[in-house]
Amino acid sequence: MRVDYHEVIQTIEKILLKNGFTEDRAVLCASLFTQASLDGVASHGLDRFPVFLEMIRKKLVLPNQEANLVESYGVFERWSGNLGPGPLNAHQCMDRAIRISKEFGVGIVALQNTNHWMRAGNYGWQAAESGCIGICFTNTKPNMPAWGGREPKLGNNPLVIAIPRSSGHIVLDMAMSQFSYGKLKTYLREGKEMPFDAGFDPDGNLTKSPESVIANELALPIGLWKGAGLSLLLDMLATIMSGGKATFQVGESGEESGLSQVFICLDAEKLGISEWSDIKLDQIVGDLKRSLTFADKEIRYPGENNMKTREENMLNGVPVDEQIWKSIIQEL
Amino acid sequence: MRVDYHEVIQTIEKILLKNGFTEDRAVLCASLFTQASLDGVASHGLDRFPVFLEMIRKKLVLPNQEANLVESYGVFERWSGNLGPGPLNAHQCMDRAIRISKEFGVGIVALQNTNHWMRAGNYGWQAAESGCIGICFTNTKPNMPAWGGREPKLGNNPLVIAIPRSSGHIVLDMAMSQFSYGKLKTYLREGKEMPFDAGFDPDGNLTKSPESVIANELALPIGLWKGAGLSLLLDMLATIMSGGKATFQVGESGEESGLSQVFICLDAEKLGISEWSDIKLDQIVGDLKRSLTFADKEIRYPGENNMKTREENMLNGVPVDEQIWKSIIQEL
Repeated sequence: MRVDYHEVIQTIEKILLKNGFTEDRAVLCASLFTQASLDGVASHGLDRFPVFLEMIRKKLVLPNQEANLVESYGVFERWSGNLGPGPLNAHQCMDRAIRISKEFGVGIVALQNTNHWMRAGNYGWQAAESGCIGICFTNTKPNMPAWGGREPKLGNNPLVIAIPRSSGHIVLDMAMSQFSYGKLKTYLREGKEMPFDAGFDPDGNLTKSPESVIANELALPIGLWKGAGLSLLLDMLATIMSGGKATFQVGESGEESGLSQVFICLDAEKLGISEWSDIKLDQIVGDLKRSLTFADKEIRYPGENNMKTREENMLNGVPVDEQIWKSIIQEL
Repeated sequence: MRVDYHEVIQTIEKILLKNGFTEDRAVLCASLFTQASLDGVASHGLDRFPVFLEMIRKKLVLPNQEANLVESYGVFERWSGNLGPGPLNAHQCMDRAIRISKEFGVGIVALQNTNHWMRAGNYGWQAAESGCIGICFTNTKPNMPAWGGREPKLGNNPLVIAIPRSSGHIVLDMAMSQFSYGKLKTYLREGKEMPFDAGFDPDGNLTKSPESVIANELALPIGLWKGAGLSLLLDMLATIMSGGKATFQVGESGEESGLSQVFICLDAEKLGISEWSDIKLDQIVGDLKRSLTFADKEIRYPGENNMKTREENMLNGVPVDEQIWKSIIQEL
């Protein structure tokens, strides 16, 4: 079903107000949840809102806690999220990285003790819309094996790289697992195999079976040992830069709370990049689009369909899962 | 066969002196080639030295050209490599990023118009040995398809992330293709299939056949569409940050010359990271090592075996391919 954008945002806002959020923070948090669904990423938007409320009730997400500066080193700042709402903390720290980059050209904020930021791409779009190259990543609870391992030790640690461009920002938003558990569950419900290897079976062989991967928590790192390595390094960076918890420590509590994140911005104008970036990016995209393709395939760049999806959903209503929407409305 | 470390370095140095290098640049360039082989990465060390000489003869690598500063923005600097030797340019720019980070905490150098830096990991070790977190990446000629494409459009754009640690630096050095063409050729020579999917066949199906992948230049991006996206974004970043050539432009000449690269450093001490990084990194590595594993597998972190290999090869001699060494010696 579809629900009008403004109705969605007002509904979420009202529920947040009932759950300990102040007015302005409820508005921003509602818009971040809604933006994810508006942009076609409901899995990290409205679909997760009931889980978010659950985390508030368990006192793992503290609605009235704000992020604060811990240490400042000019271009680099260390912040604490104080276990406040992940989307608000992430938005604030990306905003801070943007501001620092507007002053020095480069701005980096490392954030400790925060919570799940929901849709990672939101913060990439935020940077790009401010004219900044934005890079951010987070650790998660353990949900992937190390290379050779038969238990989850690594996080799928989403990574975002966003590049501003006049004719459409380029925004890559990718986790380190080949498929999300959300996607695996969808295929399982539909009784289908995954289209590509999705993880390991109990004997350590690659498998396309969503059932096996979910049961053993052995999701496949992208590029096998390579993605396992990249995931590990992102966790290490987020942990030591922020001074916060590592993936294995997040896993100890059994709840995904107290994460570490990093936000990096480069201001394109301040660094002379904007002088040529539109031309160069258009050339690269143009060349990519001219690629010969296999039969029915079409080449797209990361983020290409985002604005089209956003406009369509703004016009026709935000797509929401009927069950999810019913459970959300009960919170009013 | 094995050749004594000092003999290797002196041999390479003499040849570079005969090919237009000044004394100090010959010493450094020889040590960078030798370090790669010493650390067990001959494919990007001595094995490539004959190709490097060939590039000099074709005047694609200009031995007497040095990198110079183009623009300075405090923490961010833009340099030109002036088509000089790639390893020297990369070493100089990582050194510059280290120095900037020692002053401001963070240092970023973007380098245009350079050449193949040979072993990417060298510059990660360089940063880590200076107490810096080091991140660097380069674009390459097109050698991988976009997702859905049936011709090479993307580079395999190696990415390095290095983290200093007292009990052994963590250094990830990975290209965006699942296997290098060097590795594919080794399996082809041995008449073997690759152990995992390595690319696409002419119909767009995944294949383990090195012959097919090499013939069609359709190497597999790590994580399928994900690595294809990451490769594209790294090319875009390197191109617009440096103001240099994109992968598709490198491809136009048919020769891999005139690359764009980025070097990022964070000084661990200056940013308060060194206060806890050893403890946190040891904890993360410790947890990883305690993972349950499949049958005969062992868990290693990126860079773990590097120092052991280096020490062994320093003691027993640098492993060199007999044919390659013969052809190198003829250059004396």
